[in-house]
Amino acid sequence: MNVQERGDEKGSLVKKAMRAVTFHIKDNRLRVGDTLPGEGYFVSELGVSRAVMREAFGALAALQLIDVGNGRKPKVGAVDGSVIATSLNHAVDTAQITVPEVWDVRRTIELRTATLAAVSRTEAEAVGIMNLADAIARDSDNFELMTKHDIAFHEAIARASHNALFLQIVTSFSPLMQVAVPTAWQTRKAAEQKSVMLERHHDVAVAIANRDPEAAGNAMKAHFDTSIGDLLRGLAGPYGGL
Amino acid sequence: MNVQERGDEKGSLVKKAMRAVTFHIKDNRLRVGDTLPGEGYFVSELGVSRAVMREAFGALAALQLIDVGNGRKPKVGAVDGSVIATSLNHAVDTAQITVPEVWDVRRTIELRTATLAAVSRTEAEAVGIMNLADAIARDSDNFELMTKHDIAFHEAIARASHNALFLQIVTSFSPLMQVAVPTAWQTRKAAEQKSVMLERHHDVAVAIANRDPEAAGNAMKAHFDTSIGDLLRGLAGPYGGL
Repeated sequence: MNVQERGDEKGSLVKKAMRAVTFHIKDNRLRVGDTLPGEGYFVSELGVSRAVMREAFGALAALQLIDVGNGRKPKVGAVDGSVIATSLNHAVDTAQITVPEVWDVRRTIELRTATLAAVSRTEAEAVGIMNLADAIARDSDNFELMTKHDIAFHEAIARASHNALFLQIVTSFSPLMQVAVPTAWQTRKAAEQKSVMLERHHDVAVAIANRDPEAAGNAMKAHFDTSIGDLLRGLAGPYGGL
Repeated sequence: MNVQERGDEKGSLVKKAMRAVTFHIKDNRLRVGDTLPGEGYFVSELGVSRAVMREAFGALAALQLIDVGNGRKPKVGAVDGSVIATSLNHAVDTAQITVPEVWDVRRTIELRTATLAAVSRTEAEAVGIMNLADAIARDSDNFELMTKHDIAFHEAIARASHNALFLQIVTSFSPLMQVAVPTAWQTRKAAEQKSVMLERHHDVAVAIANRDPEAAGNAMKAHFDTSIGDLLRGLAGPYGGL
């Protein structure tokens, strides 16, 4: 057996060890924060080496399936969109996915989160969304602060949709928005569109407060098709290309 | 310094090392398959230990940002939806996300992929989608085979949308469909709906072949709202709950 074969064998043992942990979580119907057996348990259960098991635990921790601490047993991990964000950013950085493609997915998803939010939002959520629309207008001369509010605005709507997967996906767009949105606003075309953009955000917030799903979807659609569409067309460099 | 602090410090060093690799990829505009410097380069560049760097490379490989082999330098990794799928399955297995929530996201996304596919599909893609609709009908008495065609049908439409992120997200649903779809078909209600389901798939394929985006979106919507809606309502156990 040469080095290559031994390496491949180790890789498949690590995958097998990872699967054993995920099956353990599923079969025992474990929930976030529940304790998992330590390395030793799986080592004797599976007959793999401690090195293989350590690598499997490392990979599971990177994927946030488990939460490993120091000197304590691992716990079942909570998902928060950051794994999807890491994958997404890598794909954009390496030109596997373009920013206009991401923005089409955002548009598709956020038409739905706005619609759902208008039906499912609590009173506190409606107020929070309106406050963020106001904050975007208030700080519209400070790109960095405005972008922060803008990201929070879209995440608050996703949260108010009360669908945990929509929230995760929308949250995963945030690191990309942090780079792309301020870049976009530096174009002259974008500056001219600022008042329209502020109005659209306000329209979305009002429709959600009024529990009007159709108006909320339409306002979000208008936001993406005018303001954001113009921004994308104004973009140059790695984040442009529409 | 106690053990806990030393552990946390190591964790933050690993994160720093991971960021250094992602910055290297971004700054040098590397693409899938391009070679990265080995552990030794980053060890001396960052002044971290070999153990820290090995852990960082392991985490990056788990997230598919890099592709590590044996005795060769790492390469820039290709994304394929399996990282999102792993995160999604974990979230469903641990009740952080429900199957009806996933199905709402699928419905939202696949209305759009069907619409885009009707505009962007090649001739070969249109034929492939039609063949898969026929295969679903042909093997409709074999749940396992029919599910395989069903998954391939939805992936083929996402591919024909020519948006790489939609394709990744749709692909990430496949492991869940492999479990949920055959379970759903075992209900009596589902069996009664089989001819309607087959017709809907056929309608989607025809609309895409006819380059009719509106009809394609409507047919996919009808597919989700009737067939799949009924399936979800008929489901019990961990994959139900609508």
